[in-house]
Amino acid sequence: MTLEVLASPKPGNVDRCHDYAETRLEHFIVSALAVRPALEASEARSAGLGPLIEAAVGATACHAGGNTHFGAFLLLIPLVYGGTLEGAIEAIRASTVEDAVAFYRAFGLTRVRVAAKDELDVNDPSAADALRTRGMTLLDVMAHSAPRDMVAREWTNGFALCRRAADALLADSEPRTAVARAFLALLANEPDTFIAKKHGPDLAEETRRRAADVVRGEVTLESLDTWCIGRGVNPGSLADITIGAIFLALGRGWAWDC
Amino acid sequence: MTLEVLASPKPGNVDRCHDYAETRLEHFIVSALAVRPALEASEARSAGLGPLIEAAVGATACHAGGNTHFGAFLLLIPLVYGGTLEGAIEAIRASTVEDAVAFYRAFGLTRVRVAAKDELDVNDPSAADALRTRGMTLLDVMAHSAPRDMVAREWTNGFALCRRAADALLADSEPRTAVARAFLALLANEPDTFIAKKHGPDLAEETRRRAADVVRGEVTLESLDTWCIGRGVNPGSLADITIGAIFLALGRGWAWDC
Repeated sequence: MTLEVLASPKPGNVDRCHDYAETRLEHFIVSALAVRPALEASEARSAGLGPLIEAAVGATACHAGGNTHFGAFLLLIPLVYGGTLEGAIEAIRASTVEDAVAFYRAFGLTRVRVAAKDELDVNDPSAADALRTRGMTLLDVMAHSAPRDMVAREWTNGFALCRRAADALLADSEPRTAVARAFLALLANEPDTFIAKKHGPDLAEETRRRAADVVRGEVTLESLDTWCIGRGVNPGSLADITIGAIFLALGRGWAWDC
Repeated sequence: MTLEVLASPKPGNVDRCHDYAETRLEHFIVSALAVRPALEASEARSAGLGPLIEAAVGATACHAGGNTHFGAFLLLIPLVYGGTLEGAIEAIRASTVEDAVAFYRAFGLTRVRVAAKDELDVNDPSAADALRTRGMTLLDVMAHSAPRDMVAREWTNGFALCRRAADALLADSEPRTAVARAFLALLANEPDTFIAKKHGPDLAEETRRRAADVVRGEVTLESLDTWCIGRGVNPGSLADITIGAIFLALGRGWAWDC
């Protein structure tokens, strides 16, 4: 989490050179510090995935910067719990209805952007009943959200984007600046679903296209950053994916500090 | 530790806008993450001050950025151990010869700048014997170093500079930028002993004078920063003092995030 947020420049997102008024670099770092007990509990498998995600979100609600790492926890908690990619996929498959109920409780602990008119509205107190009636596990919930949420989608596709970005980190010959490059490559290839929820799919696709222009060298990274900030475009879901990628890369021996 | 290193601009030191080639912002953040078990052990008083400092230094030697927080641990460990300022002072008074021996072992775990020709040279394997022969406690060692080391001096004067800077933080009407101001105020009033050990007392005094010029509005902060970086002047001891000050201020309810 810290290597992700410290990487610069990342168009539109909080980094060393940019804060948002309400959510600043300090909040992301404090969040990374505060979540440690929940990550240790995940490593020890002292609870199920849902309660662990709830614990992580609860622990990081200690700061006033709003939602910093909710999406990241959806990826990191299974990865830490599973120990390996295979272990994470296995843990996800074994998730339960009570994991789903705990996950919905976690929403109440922070402010998370959700698509309008979702039939499993996280702000609806009857959602827990609906989950139990339908017998939806946490994996079912993620599958339900996957078409509109690329973080949820990672649960259904074996962490495909995290793996691809981890490969990019490991292949990069300049580790100290690799995170920003891996992030830009994701941005140029995948419409960010956080942007889509906030501004609609057209702006998410336009952001992707502009990032591809940067990768091709037709536009500067700085001008993309300025455009993103001016529009309030922050690719938050791809930041979460990047965090998952860094975790996978570190697990494969990535030397971030060379 | 994280609030200190993220504060900008801090003339000559690592901050959001400046890295050194071998020691970067990432190293300071990783160090703050890695030391947590040693701080938890300090809070639980599960060992003496010397072994706790040794544990902290050992835990943070996990990164390749060299010495990041050695001086900070000399202040933080007693403060966390003691729980209060009074508790810290009491713990310091109760420090033992074996604490001193452990402290010297900690030097071997990192690279710390020491004054030349110190009779208790930390690189001398016979130093432990000398400590035992003379019956020097860790407080005695700090008192020995106090004339040339402002962090050691805090052990002998009841954390005087930490307290003064904590008062400044608590009195500041803009907490989000208060750390950088408190640091500059220290820099304008106290010759940094890390600079003195590295470059001699004259350059430490010149740095102080130039910082005072900035406080009086006669020189810009940016020009001081440029001068420091050009000369390799980094006020590392005052960064440590600032960390102690932030800890004291937080303990007195300082709302850093308003």
